[in-house]
Formats: sequence, structure tokens, C-alpha cells
Amino acid sequence: MFYIIGLGLCDEKDITVRGLEAVKGSSRVYLEAYTSILMVQKDRLEAFYGKGLILADRDMVETESDEILRDADQADVSLLVVGDPFGATTHTDMLLRARALKIPTRVIHNASIMNAVGACGLQLYNFGQTVSLVFFTETWRPDSFYDRIRENVDLGMHTLVLLDIKVKEQSEENLARKIYEPPRYMSIPQAVSQLIEVEEKRQAGILSPETTLAVAVSRVGGGPGNERIVAGTLSELSAQPAEAFGEPLHSLVIVGKRVHPLEIEYAQEFAVSRESWRNVATKIYACNLD
Amino acid sequence: MFYIIGLGLCDEKDITVRGLEAVKGSSRVYLEAYTSILMVQKDRLEAFYGKGLILADRDMVETESDEILRDADQADVSLLVVGDPFGATTHTDMLLRARALKIPTRVIHNASIMNAVGACGLQLYNFGQTVSLVFFTETWRPDSFYDRIRENVDLGMHTLVLLDIKVKEQSEENLARKIYEPPRYMSIPQAVSQLIEVEEKRQAGILSPETTLAVAVSRVGGGPGNERIVAGTLSELSAQPAEAFGEPLHSLVIVGKRVHPLEIEYAQEFAVSRESWRNVATKIYACNLD
Repeated sequence: MFYIIGLGLCDEKDITVRGLEAVKGSSRVYLEAYTSILMVQKDRLEAFYGKGLILADRDMVETESDEILRDADQADVSLLVVGDPFGATTHTDMLLRARALKIPTRVIHNASIMNAVGACGLQLYNFGQTVSLVFFTETWRPDSFYDRIRENVDLGMHTLVLLDIKVKEQSEENLARKIYEPPRYMSIPQAVSQLIEVEEKRQAGILSPETTLAVAVSRVGGGPGNERIVAGTLSELSAQPAEAFGEPLHSLVIVGKRVHPLEIEYAQEFAVSRESWRNVATKIYACNLD
Repeated sequence: MFYIIGLGLCDEKDITVRGLEAVKGSSRVYLEAYTSILMVQKDRLEAFYGKGLILADRDMVETESDEILRDADQADVSLLVVGDPFGATTHTDMLLRARALKIPTRVIHNASIMNAVGACGLQLYNFGQTVSLVFFTETWRPDSFYDRIRENVDLGMHTLVLLDIKVKEQSEENLARKIYEPPRYMSIPQAVSQLIEVEEKRQAGILSPETTLAVAVSRVGGGPGNERIVAGTLSELSAQPAEAFGEPLHSLVIVGKRVHPLEIEYAQEFAVSRESWRNVATKIYACNLD
């Protein structure tokens, strides 16, 4: 059996009991660590599982899938992924490949940012499509995400914006050698800056520093003292010091106009300024607060 | 500490290791069982946890929240919910109430249908807002869900349609007595019939029995032999016998026009008729299949 097992969002204890049993019974266990990251390192997982893990980077998952699947028709092989297995298309590719090889598969689900984002108090059924924001470079500043956000904004839906991570990337001069750049994770202020840059270029008036409400969610599922949720206008969020959000990973939710007063009330607990949060919600979002 | 713990989707082994530890350390453990259901009964959970569970029905969660929260500032109390805690607004209400009472809280996330639906091969970032479909009665046939589906269809997004469940409901003549109706779960054919009824009334041309593709997902996360995914046109799905979908719970995904050929390829494994599935995808959805 080939298992793809979701690890959830935080640490070694977020695996399900079913997932843990599958890991313990597997002859090889791979850890995929480039589409997202856990808040703990590989050795802590290994100690908890009592088992060595094989790191599977992008190269391996995309070009050596047959090696990962080797003998999985006779023994159990597991691929561990952060969040839920269906968060990234590479995992569905792996399942298709296993299917083609007639290897039985099982997916063990877990929380992902796609549902755990509900922790900020905004209701999941009020979210439109999710968008991803990649690091802009000097020469590559793709802005198609703006059209997706616009569609959500026009309907009054919330938008979950997933922020880019760069793990095990190589600079151009190091392409030939096995030298990697340090990992990079997009910060909330950087995300806001990219959003505003594209708004200024496109001028559709869907995002505004002073009147668009947003919620930054960091390390969701990490529990009290670790998880951090900060709510405010885009400009309030981008003015926060790095410590306000803490370690990666960060995501950003852009609040849609259909927001319910109860969602505003719940999230105001996390507001940079409750007064400003309620003020914009009342005047711009037409929220009827008590 | 007051814990709200997601149980995931299937059985007693879908709880996370962190969730299981919290259950074992709690002085009282409530099981919320009306917004969704697990595939196993309470006694199996109790045997696995080595602990008695207090059933919390809608009445209790909505009107006796202070009893549930009693002493949670001194001892640990857990509320178990199917899926992820943020799937239902009543759980955010409980957290707000705990906050007002200055009781520390922790949410332990898990998979929910909102992310596990990716199992059908349709990509989560191509989903628009989620809608709920309630049982129509003689006198109450609410159709506002149609406007939501229409918004998604207009954008080409997929729509996850959650089907009504009725647990511990009372008939009018039994309102005064503690006599409950047997539980009811909306079936896929019934859901399709309600969708088509509203389409015929509204006539916006967004749903068509012969040319709208959909995927029925049943008992997602239940693993091989239990989970069931069936793909086809609305009329193909509604013509299936009940055994094609099996036991509850069922959900329905309406495929949006922006569907990617790889999503069609993945889901065709589950098609009632591969030929019809590919044919409609090519001709109506303009999918470029090999």
C-alpha cells in the first residue's frame, strides 16, 4: 500500500492515530518538505515515530516518483506531507502514477490551511477561491492573482492568500553545484506591498491600504502562545514589526463585503486597533455592529 | 482549558495524537453530534478513549453552553466535533462564550469536508463558496443557494454542496414529548432533484441534467472499500441506485467551467461512464483532453 499522510499544521503530535499507525508499519517513509513546512524539524518527527525519514525534495517527488513507489505493491510505503495531501497538485500526480502502476493507495487526511483558517473567525462558507502570491523578482512580477481576488471582492467573498515559500532554491551561479539558498518565507508586510503595487498598476479599486480589512494568520494550529492572528486594515498590518507575526508560515485573508457582524466581532479580539477595525467595518463594510 | 477537538471524518482513529492526549486528560468530554456525523457510534469512541462521553445535542450546545464550560478554568473540558471545529458557527459561539468567561481555550484542528473534498481530484483552489442544501418540505423550499451556485458557475468555479442531515428532530405532534424522528440524510438523487427543481423555476440556465458535470463524494476519508466517489452528469448521478453511494454522509461537487484537463483525467476514474464524462468535458467544458 502507498500511503500519503497529512501531518496537519504544527508539530509531530498533529498526525492522526491512523496516520501514526501507517508510519509505524511502513518499510520506507518519505517526508515531503517543499510545498509547506511544519513548525518542527525532521529529527523531532523521527524521534516521535521511532523511525528514520527520507527527505523528499521537489526534484525527487517530481522526477523520481517510481523510486518512491518502489515495492509499494508488496510492502507499505508512506509519503508524509504538511497539511492535507490534496493541498498540492504534485500529490495528485503521485496518486495517478501509483494508479497507473496498479499500486493500492490510501490517503490519510488532516487539517490544512484551507480549513484551519476558520480560526480567525471568518466563516469558511464565505470564502471564495484561494490565491497564491509568489515572490516578485526584478523581472518577474506576475499579477494574475489580482483577477482572482477581484472576482472574490466583487462577490463580497473573503480571499485566502497563500504566501510563497522558497525552500532549497538555487541561485543562478550555483545551479550546477549542490549549493542552496537559505529558505525564504514571504512576510505579511511584503505580501501587502505586492498587493498594493498591483492595485496601483491595475487601478480597479478593489484593494485600499486604509479601507480594506484583512487578517494575518501565522502558525495556525500552533495553540496559545504560538499561533498568532492579527486583524486590521492593510496599512495597519504592513506597519507591524516582524515580531507581531513571528516565525513562518504566514497567510493573509482579505475580508469580503458580505462579512457578517459576528465575524467582525470575533476577529476584533485580534485587531491592531479595535476602534479602527470597527470603524472601517461599519462605514466601509456596512456592518451593523452593536 | 476548554478544548474543541476536531475528530476528522471517519472513525475513532482519525483523531490527532494531540487531540487524543487532550481527551485522556479531560475531566469531562462532550460529543457534539448534530452538525455532522462520524461513521462509527459513540460506544466505539468510548472504548478507544477509555472514557465516557456526554452526548451534546443542539439544545445543549446552544442553550447550556455554561454547563459545558463549567469549571473549565480549573480542569480540562473537551468538546469533540466531527470534522474541524470551525465547520459550524455554533463552535465559534462556544469559543466566544468561553472568552467572555475568561476561560482559556484551545482548538485542535482536523480534516473537514471543506479540504478532504480534494480527494475527488478537483483542485481546492478552483472552488468558490460552499453552499448548503436543506431538505425541502411542502411549505418551505428555500432557494437562495441557487444564487450562490450561480455566482460560482459564472466564474467557472467548482461548488461544494453540503447535503442536509436531520438528527434528533421532532415531528409537530411529538414536540411536547421526548420522541424523536429517525435520522435522515439527504441522498445524491434527492439533492439533484432539488437543484433541478430550482433551476426549472429560476431558469438562469446554470444547471442542466445532461450537460452539468458533478462528483458525488461519500464517506470521504473512509479509505478503500468505504469511501465512494462517483462522477457524471447530474442525470447520470440521479439515475444511480442508492447502493452506488452507500451509507451517509454524501456531498456533491458541481464542476465549474474553469476545470483543468488533469482534474477531468483524475476524476474520470470515478465516472459512471468514462465516455460520457470525457464527451461532456470536451464539448461543454471545452477541456482539451488527449
